[in-house]
Amino acid sequence: MASNSFGRIFRITTSGESHGPGLGVIIDGCPAGLEVDEDYIQHELDRRKPGQSSITTQRKESDRISIRSGVYDGKTTGAPILILIPNEDQKSSDYDHVSQAYRPSHADYTYEKKYGIRDHRGGGRSSARETVNWVAAGAIAKLYLQKQGISIRAAVTSIGDIDVKIPMEKFDWSAVEKNIVRCPDAETAVQMQKLIETVRDDGDTVGGIVTGVIEGCPVGLGEPVFHKLEADLAHAMLSINATKGFDIGSGFSASRMKGSEHNDAWVKSESGSTTSTNHSGGIQGGISNGMPIYFRVGFKPVSTLMKDQKSVDRAGEEVIIQGKGRHDPCVVPRAVAIVEAMTALVVMDHWLMQRIYTG
Amino acid sequence: MASNSFGRIFRITTSGESHGPGLGVIIDGCPAGLEVDEDYIQHELDRRKPGQSSITTQRKESDRISIRSGVYDGKTTGAPILILIPNEDQKSSDYDHVSQAYRPSHADYTYEKKYGIRDHRGGGRSSARETVNWVAAGAIAKLYLQKQGISIRAAVTSIGDIDVKIPMEKFDWSAVEKNIVRCPDAETAVQMQKLIETVRDDGDTVGGIVTGVIEGCPVGLGEPVFHKLEADLAHAMLSINATKGFDIGSGFSASRMKGSEHNDAWVKSESGSTTSTNHSGGIQGGISNGMPIYFRVGFKPVSTLMKDQKSVDRAGEEVIIQGKGRHDPCVVPRAVAIVEAMTALVVMDHWLMQRIYTG
Amino acid sequence: MASNSFGRIFRITTSGESHGPGLGVIIDGCPAGLEVDEDYIQHELDRRKPGQSSITTQRKESDRISIRSGVYDGKTTGAPILILIPNEDQKSSDYDHVSQAYRPSHADYTYEKKYGIRDHRGGGRSSARETVNWVAAGAIAKLYLQKQGISIRAAVTSIGDIDVKIPMEKFDWSAVEKNIVRCPDAETAVQMQKLIETVRDDGDTVGGIVTGVIEGCPVGLGEPVFHKLEADLAHAMLSINATKGFDIGSGFSASRMKGSEHNDAWVKSESGSTTSTNHSGGIQGGISNGMPIYFRVGFKPVSTLMKDQKSVDRAGEEVIIQGKGRHDPCVVPRAVAIVEAMTALVVMDHWLMQRIYTG
Amino acid sequence: MASNSFGRIFRITTSGESHGPGLGVIIDGCPAGLEVDEDYIQHELDRRKPGQSSITTQRKESDRISIRSGVYDGKTTGAPILILIPNEDQKSSDYDHVSQAYRPSHADYTYEKKYGIRDHRGGGRSSARETVNWVAAGAIAKLYLQKQGISIRAAVTSIGDIDVKIPMEKFDWSAVEKNIVRCPDAETAVQMQKLIETVRDDGDTVGGIVTGVIEGCPVGLGEPVFHKLEADLAHAMLSINATKGFDIGSGFSASRMKGSEHNDAWVKSESGSTTSTNHSGGIQGGISNGMPIYFRVGFKPVSTLMKDQKSVDRAGEEVIIQGKGRHDPCVVPRAVAIVEAMTALVVMDHWLMQRIYTG
Repeated sequence: MASNSFGRIFRITTSGESHGPGLGVIIDGCPAGLEVDEDYIQHELDRRKPGQSSITTQRKESDRISIRSGVYDGKTTGAPILILIPNEDQKSSDYDHVSQAYRPSHADYTYEKKYGIRDHRGGGRSSARETVNWVAAGAIAKLYLQKQGISIRAAVTSIGDIDVKIPMEKFDWSAVEKNIVRCPDAETAVQMQKLIETVRDDGDTVGGIVTGVIEGCPVGLGEPVFHKLEADLAHAMLSINATKGFDIGSGFSASRMKGSEHNDAWVKSESGSTTSTNHSGGIQGGISNGMPIYFRVGFKPVSTLMKDQKSVDRAGEEVIIQGKGRHDPCVVPRAVAIVEAMTALVVMDHWLMQRIYTG
Repeated sequence: MASNSFGRIFRITTSGESHGPGLGVIIDGCPAGLEVDEDYIQHELDRRKPGQSSITTQRKESDRISIRSGVYDGKTTGAPILILIPNEDQKSSDYDHVSQAYRPSHADYTYEKKYGIRDHRGGGRSSARETVNWVAAGAIAKLYLQKQGISIRAAVTSIGDIDVKIPMEKFDWSAVEKNIVRCPDAETAVQMQKLIETVRDDGDTVGGIVTGVIEGCPVGLGEPVFHKLEADLAHAMLSINATKGFDIGSGFSASRMKGSEHNDAWVKSESGSTTSTNHSGGIQGGISNGMPIYFRVGFKPVSTLMKDQKSVDRAGEEVIIQGKGRHDPCVVPRAVAIVEAMTALVVMDHWLMQRIYTG
Repeated sequence: MASNSFGRIFRITTSGESHGPGLGVIIDGCPAGLEVDEDYIQHELDRRKPGQSSITTQRKESDRISIRSGVYDGKTTGAPILILIPNEDQKSSDYDHVSQAYRPSHADYTYEKKYGIRDHRGGGRSSARETVNWVAAGAIAKLYLQKQGISIRAAVTSIGDIDVKIPMEKFDWSAVEKNIVRCPDAETAVQMQKLIETVRDDGDTVGGIVTGVIEGCPVGLGEPVFHKLEADLAHAMLSINATKGFDIGSGFSASRMKGSEHNDAWVKSESGSTTSTNHSGGIQGGISNGMPIYFRVGFKPVSTLMKDQKSVDRAGEEVIIQGKGRHDPCVVPRAVAIVEAMTALVVMDHWLMQRIYTG
Repeated sequence: MASNSFGRIFRITTSGESHGPGLGVIIDGCPAGLEVDEDYIQHELDRRKPGQSSITTQRKESDRISIRSGVYDGKTTGAPILILIPNEDQKSSDYDHVSQAYRPSHADYTYEKKYGIRDHRGGGRSSARETVNWVAAGAIAKLYLQKQGISIRAAVTSIGDIDVKIPMEKFDWSAVEKNIVRCPDAETAVQMQKLIETVRDDGDTVGGIVTGVIEGCPVGLGEPVFHKLEADLAHAMLSINATKGFDIGSGFSASRMKGSEHNDAWVKSESGSTTSTNHSGGIQGGISNGMPIYFRVGFKPVSTLMKDQKSVDRAGEEVIIQGKGRHDPCVVPRAVAIVEAMTALVVMDHWLMQRIYTG
């Protein structure tokens, strides 16, 4: 059924496949009067795009956006915004060998069984190329939220066994865009990059973790029962290709703690009340409490290897899937822009919802 | 805005507070002709109810359901099913001391700021008492899914630092309802119970982890981009009170793995194709692949302690929140029924959605 | 699928059948802080209830509401409001004769074919008894809208061939609740009442028209493409049992007009701009323009007659449906409260939506 | 808020303005495996397009569609289908004179007040040019429904005071596409055409009525309370620009009838049961009963005249709106394709919904 939309007030509806004319997203519910800075949108897409460094896939896409509606004289009009992003550097023949076979840990088998038909070129609709739609739409949300004083940032905090050891409050955000891993700690970034290169040279891939941080979020965003702010974030993050987990604030480590350790005490502050610690991760009862919101998103290693793998084909016969084509040895550095975009879509939706109460 | 509904095809809409006449849920979209086994629904509610053992809160609720519509001659008619569950054992005066103060890590502050008004008695709408609605509705979904050969089960796999060491495939499901912790390993259960009792006697609380398992799920459930099966599960789990994290299949540990370790190879099977390992957790590209689906849900320790805690009140003045009332030292054993119920709601919704394709 | 909800921001979800414990509605998305005047809600239900006069069905229902949640200290809290309305005066045996047969122009046949099962008692879920849910919820919306200066009223403007001749601007609203037909013209009311009595005495029924009027509606309510204000009103009105048509402003008569006659010229006014005529019916491009909104709703004659009728049964055999039981000879006077309620739900939803823009 | 989507299972999301790069629609929820006949889609667009005859606007648009996604090897894949339709023959300068003034009975004033900003070129988003999106998407729905044996047709049954006198059952469907009015009675068509030409030559416009007919619809489509089949049709029809009314089956004339005249008696038929008359219009209790579904849609006269009209501008000053540009003297002949398309979208949505029950 109709499932290619995300959000309720600020809603995106997406389309497009890895190979074909391109991707396209309609952004519905954007308030009128927002100045649309196309350079900023392009900048966000560039942070996600393939071929941006030695540790990403070498597919070359300029990802130039074309805004087809909803913007007049440089400003949004309240009408839906259609953005197109063409596909340029496709090599469909790279996928001929998998037209009849199921790649391990890809969506080939499940799509074919669900739909009875499969566009095998680059994974078709299951490709992470879809996320250009999200980054384009998320950039507009970020532009809007920045004007409200809300910042949304993410960074890579683990690659394989290498973890950033410093806590979120001490991240060096200025470092993030200066290293190709997008790690908030320059020294750890060097190690991470080496690991990715080693894995790449071995024809293998590796997973990692992205940490997202929302700052400047006002008190009151999020719904109390369903559509809790963290539940919508969880849905958003688990929608990203290759994600296997989400946790917020203290996260899974909270399961090991006692209440007396975990509780965030309320204390007086200049603006009224604040908490002395932030294990809650900025959300209580599904609703933002004014503290920074932070969460982790776990990514599995990319499934396409530059090694041969055993599999089966449509006829149920055993086959060897050759390791070829152009692929990321580690998707996590590019995923930073995607995590930020999906976060922005969630916050934007809740920010507008909240106007219903406070309007 | 309207946010007290969950699901799209099989949708529940819930109501009720901790203190007041009771809870009520409307189940919309249940297929006609299902025999409604009220004893089974009651059995599920009993697994969740307070006062069921020495390690749960001593509030006594019989949680007797009353079905008000949608069932005729013992069968569903296709009309919406309204189920009421009364509140019986309320002690609103237990909460007088927090009518003006914000309890640490509760939703008192955020509700008051969002709505400008707060029903402080037992946390009002923010109370986990809401989950009786989910368990009642989930029981109907489970009844339906059982007839399709789909089983949904959950168990406690961590309490504080004590973990179940055996893998999911080796869980002793017959043990789960025989120990009050609901642990799938009888020996570990003893240690867990001791830890909870120690913590309780100290006036403290402790967190833990629940693992959920779906078996018999056909290939094809889940949507490809948004409403991926794991994304809807993530939303469902993060909607449960006190949860801080969700991961599926290999989960966060996937971030430490290489692709060559993580990939699930396709192999021939009697029914066609299957995978030799199941790091994917039964879902690929958002769609079930026929293998067991398993996931973890992390719970923080309960915020209400039997110890005094510092906080602030509405006027911004510092206050001491007394440790009193009746509360769970660890909510995780009761959460097993809730995790199963929310899982059932998600699977039911996707099972019905899938009929659109296969109908 | 889940289809028993109406509205997006202010959303009701309904349940219940003609015969059984009763009806129940959850109102989700009501702003916090609204004083809930139960007497007013009851007053609205009394305007709809059966047995209120000699020209309505003699089934006796007191329709006493019970508010189960969402209200604390007499005010809404922002949590969902569950209202129950019990069934009291049921005579299920009145329907034994139609358990196997299909009543002409009722929903017996279609429900049975759709669901494979049918609660034949009083029509089950297809009964207009469902509309008590709408009137109860609509009363809360009306309470809220009244505080915003928005009035919602309706009146009977046709019964059979008898029409109110005066234009909407000259309706005598004070007359409406003084005659049992609810006609805004006292003289016409007398003729209408006579017609209904004649038809009733003949064991027959008759149709009619209700005109709805919204005044005080601010400029800007309604969405530009789908969810136009008139489109949502049309959906609402065609959801009411026995309705066959809806038109707004000049309505169907516009099809006979020229543009030079129909256009509403903009003229200067104290508040800025207004139109000299109002053929548009207060809505332009789907959005309210500040002028009164008015529309007509056409009702067919009630299908249950006090005469024998030919029909067929489940086995496909010809049967005679006896004319018996308690039924309205004309449903239109009672429908006035229902039209107002559904109108209020639509306006409330759009009023809250509009806060997103103006908040 | 997000309001540019229509449908639930088969859902379209639309974008675009009268002047600008063009229109674009994403069709989400189309079943996989449908052969997409582009010539048929183009044929439907040609029936709607401007400049097709002497009685339509002389704006020239070829309306060549470009399918950007969701179709592979000529068949739908289950992925969303993005269709673009460019704008070619725009004359934005035709609208310079209304950039500051409000045209009578247009959406200029309401858009400006709602959004604070207005794309005045051709009415921007409020233009009926939007309906190319609907016709393109509706054509795909029609292709699918034709394979299910469901036919959807419409015809012009009134222009001004000239009515088709023959009943729906006797429409000459072969005549409809042979006359430029699209009237199902060749003789009446001649009179209608003359009237439109007279009105056009006078710089004026005229309204009319379109009748829609669905045949071959299986029993069981439609939801019982909200989303009744007729309610969704009403929403669809009142979403079309310039519509003022909708009625179904006996329609408004039912209000003048007695129950004994109006009731449709059930009689034996070869296929089981049928009704001897069809005042119900093929729908009972919101659900299709297998008989033909027919309804009327009333259109007001086009608001743009080739005559000068008085109005006011943004500053509240009186102005004269000149009669110029290219416009339809009567929109009803072109609306036939739009009525069919919106009908197809509703039926398609309900057809897929019904698979949930019957799958």
